[in-house]
Parts: sequence; structure tokens; C-alpha cells
Amino acid sequence: MNIVTISREFGSGGRELGKRIADVLGYDYYDKEIISTIAKRHNLDENYVEHALTSAHLHTLPLTFKHSFTSPMYIATPKTDILLEQKRVIDEIAEKGRNCVIVGRNADVLLKGYEPFNIFVCAEMEERIKRCIDRAEKGENLNPKEIKKKIIRIDKNRKRTRYLISEKDWGSRKSYHLIVNTTGWDLKALSEVTAGVVERWFKDKESNTENE
Amino acid sequence: MNIVTISREFGSGGRELGKRIADVLGYDYYDKEIISTIAKRHNLDENYVEHALTSAHLHTLPLTFKHSFTSPMYIATPKTDILLEQKRVIDEIAEKGRNCVIVGRNADVLLKGYEPFNIFVCAEMEERIKRCIDRAEKGENLNPKEIKKKIIRIDKNRKRTRYLISEKDWGSRKSYHLIVNTTGWDLKALSEVTAGVVERWFKDKESNTENE
Repeated sequence: MNIVTISREFGSGGRELGKRIADVLGYDYYDKEIISTIAKRHNLDENYVEHALTSAHLHTLPLTFKHSFTSPMYIATPKTDILLEQKRVIDEIAEKGRNCVIVGRNADVLLKGYEPFNIFVCAEMEERIKRCIDRAEKGENLNPKEIKKKIIRIDKNRKRTRYLISEKDWGSRKSYHLIVNTTGWDLKALSEVTAGVVERWFKDKESNTENE
Repeated sequence: MNIVTISREFGSGGRELGKRIADVLGYDYYDKEIISTIAKRHNLDENYVEHALTSAHLHTLPLTFKHSFTSPMYIATPKTDILLEQKRVIDEIAEKGRNCVIVGRNADVLLKGYEPFNIFVCAEMEERIKRCIDRAEKGENLNPKEIKKKIIRIDKNRKRTRYLISEKDWGSRKSYHLIVNTTGWDLKALSEVTAGVVERWFKDKESNTENE
């Protein structure tokens, strides 16, 4: 089973790139489904779940969370419940044994044991602001300055949330197999060549295993 | 003309990857040639040139160096002479107008005007130490601890040298189009898929220019 994880800066096009890579390779694709599964199981609002997962603060988390998921001596709070449920949902995805692309949710860390291929997607700030404006719903009044603030805030939260469960930094070259900067790329083209990298990685890994 | 620049952590296999990418694409390849050209022109020892280029300290450099190469009010020292000569040699390579891969020498910054495709190559420390040991000459007694120290020192110098001429950090995702971690890869396979990324980038850029 081949698992590809996509971590990304907000507005970098990482989600679209992940979806396209999954399409090129014929892999399953997970993104919002993780949030909606958690929401359904706990009878919670999806927005609440998303917010809880992206704004987790240390003081609401178990002291042992970083070291063990299996026996956390945690102070039960909705946030930690949601984090543990997220871990469970992502594990279930992996247990299906099907090739897949998972966007976000620190799946690279959570599924480390499955040896996923981990991609980080970034882009220049101007391009990210532009993408947010292009994607906004009609009538939504978006101010570039406010968008920039939002982008910085969301990335900060992603960095912080990751830090809770891994010592390898969010967005740092040491934490991924590949970092792609989408600036200047057509995402369709980029997804095709990136899929080529992923395909080769797993092909070589498989033939190495066979030769052992 | 397509220029690919390779920046890399010491021991990451960046040089070999660069050479292989050049081979796959049929591009010219520059690495040590830059050092030897400078050495020849100034009648200097190659080791001295290399050392001067990788251990440049701020106090030996012109105050305006960061802002302008064309009119530096610099305090002439051998080191700054060598840095300026390096800039000249790299410019001459670009002026040839041939597709090429340039490894090191901050060519990504120096040739910014030519819009090169910039790759950064990294690897996990253990793998880098192993590569250094494998590459060592017979009879050379290399101790992993000492190698690690050397790796850290060289990378620190690369970071510092780059900082003199660019505000974009060495090894940070914002400074490159692509960051590849060679850990776990066969370099031949990696060079083939990376060459695919490079080829697509320039192909799309060309067709965009034609459509404008």
C-alpha cells in the first residue's frame, strides 16, 4: 500500500495538487472526509471540529500526548477527544490497505509506521493571497491585507498543532521527502510530474523489498 | 536557455544528482570548473579559492555588496576579489546561452535575472555521514563524529555565504522551486524524475511565452 501525505501552507494550492496527484495515480483521496467523519461520530458541527483541530493549544492537551497515543494520561477535553478521534480515523484509512493521498491532518506523522511519501506544498505570499481571492465566494469582500493576516494565522496554527505531535518542524526540509513551491506552476502540470516522482519512489521501494 | 541551479547540504549527494540531471537532459554541467577558472585567472591555488568562497566573513566584504554587484564601493581584499570573479565566471557561463546545470556557488541568486529553476538537495544526517565515509579515499581515517562536525561547519558557512548576497535563506522552502531529500533514493532514479520536473517547468514556461 502506498500512502502519500500532503502538508501545505494555506493558499498554496496544496489541496488541489493532492487531489490531482490522486487522480493521476488512481489513488483514493482524503481531505474534508476526515473532518466530516469525526463530526458525524461525535455529533458535532464540522466547523467546530476543524477549528478544534487547527487551534489546539498546549494547555488543552495531555502532557504525554507527544510521546504516546496509545496510553495518554490525558485530561479529557473535547479538543483532545477530537485529536484522538482524528488519529483513529486516519488509522482506519490506512488499515483499509488501499493506495491513497491524504491532505493535511499531520498524516505524515500519524502514519509514520506505514512509511508514507511526504510532500510539503508552499508558494509565495502574493500568489497565495491571489489564490484566496480567486477562490472566494461571490459577494465576499476580501481585503488582501486581511487575507495575509489570515494566512499567517492559519500557518502558525498548523505549525503549532504539528509541534504537539512531532519534533520535526512543519515546513522544514528535514520533515518531508519533497517540498514543492507551486509559484509559477500550472497545477495540472505540477501534479503530473510530482505523481511521477511518487510513482518512482514506491516502484523502487517495492523492487528493493523483493530483492531483499 | 534553461538554467538549473543546485544548492545542497554537504554530503547530501547534491553534486551527483546535479551531474546526473545534466546527463539526463543533455545540459552542460558546471561545478568545480568555476573554482578552477578563478584559480587559473588569478594564479591562485584551487583549495585557496574554494576556502575563500566558502568561509567569507562579513568583515572582509564590502558594505554595499548585498545591494549591488555593479558598483561596489568595496575594500579590496583577495576574498572580495574572488567573490567578484566568481560572479563574473558565472555570468560568463550564462552568457553562453546554453542550457546548463550549475552546482553550488549561489548561482540561483547570482543568475536570478535568467530565471533559473532552483533545486535544493538535502538528506538525513546519518545518510550524509555514510556518504562521506563511502567517498573517502582509501587509508583516510574518518571518524563519524568528526565528519558530523565537518558537515555542520560547512553547511554553516554555506548559509553564511549565501546570506551575504541574498535575503532569502539558504535551505528554506521559500528560496527554491523544489527541495528534494535524497534519503532512501537511488540517485539515478531520483535524477530521472527530477529531470522530468525540470523539463516540464521549462516546457510550460516556453509555451506561456509563445502564447503571450
